[in-house]
Amino acid sequence: MVTLIQKIEQIRDSRWFSNLTTFIIIAYASVLGFKTLGEVEQNYTLFLKLADYFVTIYFIFEIAIKMVAEKRFLNFFKSGWNVFDFTIVVVTLLPLEQSGFAAVARVLRVFRVLRLFTARPELKAIIDMLIKAIPSIIDIVILMFIIFYIYAIVGNFYFHELPSGLWKDFLISMLTLFRVLTFEDWTDVMYEAMEVYPWAWIYFVSFVIIAAFVFFNLFVAVIIGEMQKIQESDFHNEIHEDSKKLDLLLEEIKDLKQEVKELKIKK
Amino acid sequence: MVTLIQKIEQIRDSRWFSNLTTFIIIAYASVLGFKTLGEVEQNYTLFLKLADYFVTIYFIFEIAIKMVAEKRFLNFFKSGWNVFDFTIVVVTLLPLEQSGFAAVARVLRVFRVLRLFTARPELKAIIDMLIKAIPSIIDIVILMFIIFYIYAIVGNFYFHELPSGLWKDFLISMLTLFRVLTFEDWTDVMYEAMEVYPWAWIYFVSFVIIAAFVFFNLFVAVIIGEMQKIQESDFHNEIHEDSKKLDLLLEEIKDLKQEVKELKIKK
Amino acid sequence: MVTLIQKIEQIRDSRWFSNLTTFIIIAYASVLGFKTLGEVEQNYTLFLKLADYFVTIYFIFEIAIKMVAEKRFLNFFKSGWNVFDFTIVVVTLLPLEQSGFAAVARVLRVFRVLRLFTARPELKAIIDMLIKAIPSIIDIVILMFIIFYIYAIVGNFYFHELPSGLWKDFLISMLTLFRVLTFEDWTDVMYEAMEVYPWAWIYFVSFVIIAAFVFFNLFVAVIIGEMQKIQESDFHNEIHEDSKKLDLLLEEIKDLKQEVKELKIKK
Amino acid sequence: MVTLIQKIEQIRDSRWFSNLTTFIIIAYASVLGFKTLGEVEQNYTLFLKLADYFVTIYFIFEIAIKMVAEKRFLNFFKSGWNVFDFTIVVVTLLPLEQSGFAAVARVLRVFRVLRLFTARPELKAIIDMLIKAIPSIIDIVILMFIIFYIYAIVGNFYFHELPSGLWKDFLISMLTLFRVLTFEDWTDVMYEAMEVYPWAWIYFVSFVIIAAFVFFNLFVAVIIGEMQKIQESDFHNEIHEDSKKLDLLLEEIKDLKQEVKELKIKK
Repeated sequence: MVTLIQKIEQIRDSRWFSNLTTFIIIAYASVLGFKTLGEVEQNYTLFLKLADYFVTIYFIFEIAIKMVAEKRFLNFFKSGWNVFDFTIVVVTLLPLEQSGFAAVARVLRVFRVLRLFTARPELKAIIDMLIKAIPSIIDIVILMFIIFYIYAIVGNFYFHELPSGLWKDFLISMLTLFRVLTFEDWTDVMYEAMEVYPWAWIYFVSFVIIAAFVFFNLFVAVIIGEMQKIQESDFHNEIHEDSKKLDLLLEEIKDLKQEVKELKIKK
Repeated sequence: MVTLIQKIEQIRDSRWFSNLTTFIIIAYASVLGFKTLGEVEQNYTLFLKLADYFVTIYFIFEIAIKMVAEKRFLNFFKSGWNVFDFTIVVVTLLPLEQSGFAAVARVLRVFRVLRLFTARPELKAIIDMLIKAIPSIIDIVILMFIIFYIYAIVGNFYFHELPSGLWKDFLISMLTLFRVLTFEDWTDVMYEAMEVYPWAWIYFVSFVIIAAFVFFNLFVAVIIGEMQKIQESDFHNEIHEDSKKLDLLLEEIKDLKQEVKELKIKK
Repeated sequence: MVTLIQKIEQIRDSRWFSNLTTFIIIAYASVLGFKTLGEVEQNYTLFLKLADYFVTIYFIFEIAIKMVAEKRFLNFFKSGWNVFDFTIVVVTLLPLEQSGFAAVARVLRVFRVLRLFTARPELKAIIDMLIKAIPSIIDIVILMFIIFYIYAIVGNFYFHELPSGLWKDFLISMLTLFRVLTFEDWTDVMYEAMEVYPWAWIYFVSFVIIAAFVFFNLFVAVIIGEMQKIQESDFHNEIHEDSKKLDLLLEEIKDLKQEVKELKIKK
Repeated sequence: MVTLIQKIEQIRDSRWFSNLTTFIIIAYASVLGFKTLGEVEQNYTLFLKLADYFVTIYFIFEIAIKMVAEKRFLNFFKSGWNVFDFTIVVVTLLPLEQSGFAAVARVLRVFRVLRLFTARPELKAIIDMLIKAIPSIIDIVILMFIIFYIYAIVGNFYFHELPSGLWKDFLISMLTLFRVLTFEDWTDVMYEAMEVYPWAWIYFVSFVIIAAFVFFNLFVAVIIGEMQKIQESDFHNEIHEDSKKLDLLLEEIKDLKQEVKELKIKK
């Protein structure tokens, strides 16, 4: 029995198994992509259904292998990525299509493509890196939110009756400010406000400059922070070791001096 | 009496006190945010007034604690952040609502949310960092202003009669140039000018390229500047010390050589 | 006969030959540029044809020199740049103009200007550098593609009946998302979707933030990666050597100590 | 007589003289700025003329001081900044206003504000830095130009009959591509082309990606290049010296060893 589990473990860790999973996901993704091209839809419905069933079965089979390969069943759920895989498989198994949530079910199936992350170790690494990068910008995000909040309240207060309705409530004002931040037709928003409040340009220009300045600094801070990390881990170690060697050298020489002195006295 | 002040000092420095302030500000910010959602406004007016009074009283209480905790009363105003807090509290106490400035008063109250900076040490640090970053870009800002100035004068001179009115006076020309810098529908501005002056594209393209080039260099300069600072403070110290150790080593060895020579002669 | 080949080799490697080629390409490029200015076209047709013939002959002559200069004929095709040159020359020789592909032929001729890369060693170096930079971003491109893919499927599914037709099939949805990524009138796309699905802003704002965040990290990763390379190759070597010297020093001193000890015992 | 020249030299180098010049330029710039505000123009014409005369005379006076302060008259023209000052002063002295070039004359006068660069040493330094940064990007600019050239020819060839006239000749095509590069309503340009050539999106998307990729690499290359310069000049020196000290140490120790050996033999 143990040998069977070992064999399953080998399969799980083998390159061809991860390649097969990758291939099946990409093939399925292509099928889903083509499905949306109108003309194809009518003719291939059966084919699509078959593809759907096949992928569902393959995913259950694959996750079963991963589960069995673990020595203890619960270890499987210790890896965040496994939980992620499991959730995707389970969610797409739910009989949502028969119930009223058919539209939701169809969209959820697309998220199967996200399993590419777990099939490809390189992508897993990038995602891990991106997640690790979040804390270093969290404070700036809070700061950004405060800026947005104040400008949204002020903008909503003064501009909420403008005909475009871009400031009609707090949430919409936030959305409008996000739009201004991406420079997307922000002058249209400004010119409309300036017709009622000629000094409204101060509001917009100050927002653009402050938000851009904060982003700019965020950018610089992240680059510098990353660089410092490299230098500390990678570089300092070596120089640190050199420094220790120098201390050792100094001691050795002092030792030597002592011995030479003793030699002198001995005579 | 001294023990009471010490207790107040403890309260001021305690984490729960800063957390309480943070919580109250965020709660108040949410209330202000909902207030702007039309349907809610009618029903909750009394609740909003109460929230307003509560926050006003809490802020006075909090600032009083901070003032009393200082050994000398005037020390309180030595910290820029305290002055900032005090100003916000005082301004929102002014009876502006009864006078004609009700609209201004309502907006000023939003600035209470800015007190989040003083309640959260992390945000205080970021703001301090952002303020420290300003001098390193001040010269580039002046340069940018000169470029804007010259292009605004030239643009206003040639284009001030264009039907869009985007160049009708100096200030509006500056605003239009700022818009061009953000690439916001800048070609519309250019095409309008090109109908009268076919060579106007030189004006716009040169402005975009020059301004972008200056910004680009600003960016690089700031990153490089920050990096140099890190390397100098963090890195050079260690290498500097190593260098001193090497000098010491050289001297020790020369010393040793001298002693060995003396030993030789002694024989 | 050998001396002739040597002379040809000299010609190939001489600066004036590469300068001549550069000059001819630029002259030809200018001619092609002017050709498109409507008024000029009628009068200069003969001149243009002559220029065309001349460049064709010169290119054949130049590539012949490069081929003859090689000791073994097949070595010529070992350099990717030579293959690139050869392909351009051969393709523009094809008698496409007589066949139905006249339009294609005319456009292909423009690609002769790409030969500037091979005529200028500096440009060759930049292109080589750019090609080398691709692998370091390939994973992020795949990640970007997955994000695009999922958003395109979801967008196409929900929005495919919107009157603008921006989501009518999978490919068009991808194109629309690319447009949203460049912030080009992305709010128009969003507002249209929000009329049917008021919560559609979550789709757009999340896409913009996720895609921008991934790009931002891509940028930082590339800069940091390049820096690490420099430091490792350029810097570490020297420090590494210093470290080895220190080891040598330590050994030498231990040696010395041993000898002094022997001296002591000898007495 | 010599003492007078020395005194003039003192004036030229004094801080108050450069401050006075700065103040006069800024005052004059403000006057020019207000002049463009319509309502002011009528009333202040005389005042403006006086300001104009005053600045002209002050500039002549200032440049005379700078000329006299030089030991040899021609040395004055050795500094590029002096030539720059001189050109501005001379050009604004030309009696263009009486001739037909009144409009040109008025604009040229604005360029006097550029003299702020020479009045402020900090700005002079930035400009020098910006000019020094040009060579490091010149090759990328050439590459960019080749990309623009090829896309302009191809775009002009296929799209020159589109009703918008955005591709009607080579120069206009270049301008349109520049617009596409700034993402300014680039989809409008693309959608128009796609109506005739459904595959035109390949042209636009490939242009955007290639141009952005080249720019991205340009950015990274400049940052990395600047960093390398710092590290080489600032950092390597110290490590280089340390390396030399280590070599010296090694030699000294070998020397010492030799002497100890001699001591041994001597016995």
